[in-house]
Amino acid sequence: MTKTVTVLSGLIRPLVESRLPDWVEPRFFMSKEEALNLSPTAEIGWFDMYDKKDMATVISAATNLKWLNSIYAGVDGMPLDLLRTRGTVVTNGAGINAVTIAEYVVMGMLTVAKGYREVVRAQERREWLIDSPGKVELFGSKALLLGYGAIGKLVEERLKAFAVDVTVVRRSPGPNALTPDQWREKLGDFDWVILAVPATPETDGMIGAAELAAMKPTATLINIARGAVVDQDALVEALNSQRIAAAFLDVTTPEPLPADNPLWRLDNAHITMHLSGRAQDKMFVRAAARFLDNLDRWHKGEAVAPQVDLTLGY
Amino acid sequence: MTKTVTVLSGLIRPLVESRLPDWVEPRFFMSKEEALNLSPTAEIGWFDMYDKKDMATVISAATNLKWLNSIYAGVDGMPLDLLRTRGTVVTNGAGINAVTIAEYVVMGMLTVAKGYREVVRAQERREWLIDSPGKVELFGSKALLLGYGAIGKLVEERLKAFAVDVTVVRRSPGPNALTPDQWREKLGDFDWVILAVPATPETDGMIGAAELAAMKPTATLINIARGAVVDQDALVEALNSQRIAAAFLDVTTPEPLPADNPLWRLDNAHITMHLSGRAQDKMFVRAAARFLDNLDRWHKGEAVAPQVDLTLGY
Repeated sequence: MTKTVTVLSGLIRPLVESRLPDWVEPRFFMSKEEALNLSPTAEIGWFDMYDKKDMATVISAATNLKWLNSIYAGVDGMPLDLLRTRGTVVTNGAGINAVTIAEYVVMGMLTVAKGYREVVRAQERREWLIDSPGKVELFGSKALLLGYGAIGKLVEERLKAFAVDVTVVRRSPGPNALTPDQWREKLGDFDWVILAVPATPETDGMIGAAELAAMKPTATLINIARGAVVDQDALVEALNSQRIAAAFLDVTTPEPLPADNPLWRLDNAHITMHLSGRAQDKMFVRAAARFLDNLDRWHKGEAVAPQVDLTLGY
Repeated sequence: MTKTVTVLSGLIRPLVESRLPDWVEPRFFMSKEEALNLSPTAEIGWFDMYDKKDMATVISAATNLKWLNSIYAGVDGMPLDLLRTRGTVVTNGAGINAVTIAEYVVMGMLTVAKGYREVVRAQERREWLIDSPGKVELFGSKALLLGYGAIGKLVEERLKAFAVDVTVVRRSPGPNALTPDQWREKLGDFDWVILAVPATPETDGMIGAAELAAMKPTATLINIARGAVVDQDALVEALNSQRIAAAFLDVTTPEPLPADNPLWRLDNAHITMHLSGRAQDKMFVRAAARFLDNLDRWHKGEAVAPQVDLTLGY
């Protein structure tokens, strides 16, 4: 039997090696150089690297690649045009961290609602506050959810249990749904605007000065998508002038955010350093289980999942 | 028509005065002295005062009182024996703040799970953390819920949406339920132990050194009941030695907690200063609406609700 050369990051070796099917010939790399040497031999590749430019170089060198896997949901650092031209199937980590990120979104809403950051600071001063610095209830509030993928659906489920009235944006109209050309004119109806969209040219800067101005002055913006989805200069201005109440930002432009960026010192900006997806210890285990399952599908000629649309970019 | 003398705190005057039925003769007080003068005339009374001892004095002087209302859920400061002897009906605020408190419980669990306090501190230092200080998911974790009243039921609903496996303690056995004589031996099964019991002699010190020792070392104790439910010296010792992972304490002994109390400086004690019920601005509106509804029931000879069992104390 001819084996299928599969080139994998050494980081996931302990999670997959003993469970690989016998038709797979695994080749593990521990450095960019090893990855570059091995990638031209790969029919299947899992090339995740911390440096996205290095990863793009390795992908470009993988001229025999039929299926590329990634643990990440975002594929914005990959050479998507090249992969599309080559006909490479790409599976990503969509949904792998969705549970964790959805939990983080609800935490962000609750901490902003209750003014929890001020409670933390009071404990540091050993001061017994006599009133709550935040007096908002999620109960009965209204949320607009932009992005209705794996994360968005989990956020919706959780918020419904808090009796939050959730409106989603999607192409098909329906109850509690707005279409992509409708949501802007309704922005003033919502207490929460939650960004969970993929990073694509279409979503780049989708929240700018006009959208921020259309929001309620008491509303909070939650961004767990990508920094580029928001016009950050306009956001700083809106927060500074309290045109909106607060922003809970898991993502910023750039990352890491430089120490002199004005967002750091705004008292209504809550910055969580792209940690939402990292607040768990199950990501690699889940990604490995999904990859092994996909290997079986691949071998049977079935479709691997979830596949990235290389034109849409997610 | 003889009117029914109803003595009320002046604080709720703006919320009820224009909506009182014509059979009510309202008398409002603005001070302890006015309350003491008016209380002997009252058939119905709403005597809530910040100082619980003053309130008990006013209640004792209300020798004609048939129905006593309170905005608070806890009635531990009231002369319950005297009220029982007199046959006074007591309605309390059980459930009035339940939504807010349930939201606070979930916030507490999420902030402890994700190490959010460290994220707040990092923002103050303008430091971009590269990994999450907390890596726990609520998803799939196990919670023991002691106290299955209005708050407990709302906590359960919300946690189920996070796929938390919730076990409640109640007198009737059932799936996901333990009886009061069963839960202690199962304490080691849970990631979260949530105290939402009423303050009664039965619950006094129900979590002591033995119970803390029986918990998982990775477990978190959440107390939104009353400080006295926990043996606080034993808790300080358990937190200090990391026999349990953390405590999220909305309530302490005493309140306010003195600045030299060791709980303040324990890095795994999260102190929220009895703010959980105050993190809303709807409490008085809800209590007034409930009181007006109860006035109608009272006039028709129907039972007012929720009534406190003056023997059980809740």
